[in-house]
Amino acid sequence: MILMPEKKLKRGVAVAGVGLSKFGAFPEKNSRDLFVEAFLDLMGSMKGFDPHQIEAFYLGNFSSDQFEKQAHLAPILASWVGLSPISTLRIEDACASSGVALRQAALAIASGQYDVVLVGGVEKMTSLEIAAVTEALGTAADAQFEVSVGFTFPGFYAAMATAYMHEFQADPKAFYHVSIKNHNNGALNEYAQFRQTIREIMESKKERAAQKGRPVPAWEDEFDFLSDPKGNPMVAWPMALFDCSPVSDGAAVALLVSEEIANSFTETPIYMIGSGQASDGALPERENLYSIPAALEAGRQAYQMANLGPDDIDIAEVHDCFTIAEIIATEDLGFFDRGKGWQAAIEGKTARDGIRPVNTSGGLKAKGHPVGATGVGQVAEIWKQLNGIAGERQVQGNPKIGLTHNVGGTGQTCVVNIFERRA
Amino acid sequence: MILMPEKKLKRGVAVAGVGLSKFGAFPEKNSRDLFVEAFLDLMGSMKGFDPHQIEAFYLGNFSSDQFEKQAHLAPILASWVGLSPISTLRIEDACASSGVALRQAALAIASGQYDVVLVGGVEKMTSLEIAAVTEALGTAADAQFEVSVGFTFPGFYAAMATAYMHEFQADPKAFYHVSIKNHNNGALNEYAQFRQTIREIMESKKERAAQKGRPVPAWEDEFDFLSDPKGNPMVAWPMALFDCSPVSDGAAVALLVSEEIANSFTETPIYMIGSGQASDGALPERENLYSIPAALEAGRQAYQMANLGPDDIDIAEVHDCFTIAEIIATEDLGFFDRGKGWQAAIEGKTARDGIRPVNTSGGLKAKGHPVGATGVGQVAEIWKQLNGIAGERQVQGNPKIGLTHNVGGTGQTCVVNIFERRA
Repeated sequence: MILMPEKKLKRGVAVAGVGLSKFGAFPEKNSRDLFVEAFLDLMGSMKGFDPHQIEAFYLGNFSSDQFEKQAHLAPILASWVGLSPISTLRIEDACASSGVALRQAALAIASGQYDVVLVGGVEKMTSLEIAAVTEALGTAADAQFEVSVGFTFPGFYAAMATAYMHEFQADPKAFYHVSIKNHNNGALNEYAQFRQTIREIMESKKERAAQKGRPVPAWEDEFDFLSDPKGNPMVAWPMALFDCSPVSDGAAVALLVSEEIANSFTETPIYMIGSGQASDGALPERENLYSIPAALEAGRQAYQMANLGPDDIDIAEVHDCFTIAEIIATEDLGFFDRGKGWQAAIEGKTARDGIRPVNTSGGLKAKGHPVGATGVGQVAEIWKQLNGIAGERQVQGNPKIGLTHNVGGTGQTCVVNIFERRA
Repeated sequence: MILMPEKKLKRGVAVAGVGLSKFGAFPEKNSRDLFVEAFLDLMGSMKGFDPHQIEAFYLGNFSSDQFEKQAHLAPILASWVGLSPISTLRIEDACASSGVALRQAALAIASGQYDVVLVGGVEKMTSLEIAAVTEALGTAADAQFEVSVGFTFPGFYAAMATAYMHEFQADPKAFYHVSIKNHNNGALNEYAQFRQTIREIMESKKERAAQKGRPVPAWEDEFDFLSDPKGNPMVAWPMALFDCSPVSDGAAVALLVSEEIANSFTETPIYMIGSGQASDGALPERENLYSIPAALEAGRQAYQMANLGPDDIDIAEVHDCFTIAEIIATEDLGFFDRGKGWQAAIEGKTARDGIRPVNTSGGLKAKGHPVGATGVGQVAEIWKQLNGIAGERQVQGNPKIGLTHNVGGTGQTCVVNIFERRA
């Protein structure tokens, strides 16, 4: 692996505000509607802010081309909220699109070109039938070497899960723990697609069966439910329905400003103190399937820029497109030793009251995964947690340092950003 | 219009080398092949350069999603030439994708994050049937307000042409002059899709008719040919076949480095001394159709950063997706007064030996328009002209300052970059 020479940014960057649309399936909303919802959510939280101060718009979007027959989306969205003629562009790195957009916007501020930049992420996915969505998402894999041999994304991550289980004798129950935890968190997030715990989902299924006079399943707890194909149908072994993030519509925005003016926008800025980004080829080129090299490299860069290590991270939002992905992420980021992430999940170390809370938002699994919006959506959660405004799901202990980990494809792209509250 | 506060970049950026694939229709090549061809063209011109010095890859691509069912193209291309795990991303701004990618790469260098960045542009368009290409390109327009009422791109630019002709009593023969000039230039460009002058095309059509025993058209010169629907069929009045850039496959790359190390990469760097980028909404929102507001704003920013005016520009590559677009561009950039660009074209002022050579490469019209590759392709021509290595099409008088003007959609995006040779 090539190690990048580490470099200091010419000036610092802060997040001055965030906004989210509700994540979910909204037949009546298109990308514009979702973006406006997130933009107004930001504006509502920014007292006295004039949006004409925004100098550029960086949009993360995977493929409105395929989902809505609308490419060239960045200037359209900017115009839609009255921001023309500012510089606008769309960045695409599959499901890491808006995490990368945020990083690139930060570099543009560090360059001296801009002081105030709006970063957005949006994806409208439910416009297509589910098979067409799977096919569209498949274009994020390598058409020549991965898709052509019959893989779609559940299959990729299933292969990673079996490799992981084999290498580390992992108990597949760990996947249930990830899913249960993320639903527990999502249930407390008013923007989340799924606001039910898995126990609640189980109980409502039992109730419905009883109401319809059908035999009521004998599920006593979530583990009964998740290990029963009637509750949790298999998708690609060992990844079942509740291991997979959903198909979602949603948008997220963040306002980035140069460090020196951050306090004129908000009393509670958070500072972007580390950032790293790396790439990789297709799965067949990897040495193993139980870690993601681009995540290792992006994390290494981000930690080095921040001059911090994994133990300094108070909270993290990681890319749990599948439950196995969260376990691997917690190892790639150094939160747990290689091969120990599954045990940490079982032991509750990543729960809100654990030693390393992960995906307090509900993660991609429960908050939803409108792919282009996910990266900025992660930052919105870090903003709220670091500023102590995450409501019922607020992590205790006054968290100060937060990290986001956003993956494209099966790790062809990874971007890691680290944020700090200084007040 | 909001005027952007002008800001200095924290450090300078130079182009250290360029590479092109041949532009054209290549059924046997995909995006990877085209990119490798351009990358090897760059490497062949860079003595002693180790590609592992490249720290990031910025790719401009409009929609390999639609053309090749391959999104997430940046890490794939980087891996294909051995550059993993560097940071990679795709930027999409329709036909301005790689002009914008170049600007963003420059900002990333100016930020201090990178010293050596590869910028690429690629598009593989001929994989689809021509009607499907037109539909795919149509996604660069506004699906809700433009496409839905039946417009495709020839129609948009035809509307701009008629507005222009009406407003300025322009002689539509001016369009022929643009097309003839650009074919004259493309004929001398070994990378161009069309290496024939329009006179040569006319003569070969006459010859073919004679060979087949058909009546030989009585065309005496290019104007006869272009004004005859048998030679130049109407597409969307007044834009006929020879007013339209072709559907093309191609790739282009440029190596950007920080100013202070440029001389260690090449003896002939060119410096990026100005850059501007702006956006706009759909056509119905415009005050008029005979200028492109985003081009005015991007040009203004670029001139101000470079501390130069239109009269300082020795050569320019402008976005002639249609002949009318070149005429409007020469006015938007201030080369000629508003409403006078058509006369300048007729008078030969934009020819290689004119006072303001425009599109010496052949432009999009004759060099070809693989949409995502066009912006970087323009820079390749400026590099060659400023360094005096443009061969038979070299502009005389030792040009020192060159400009590129790259448009997305009908001006929803425009990016203008200015380059200087200092040696």
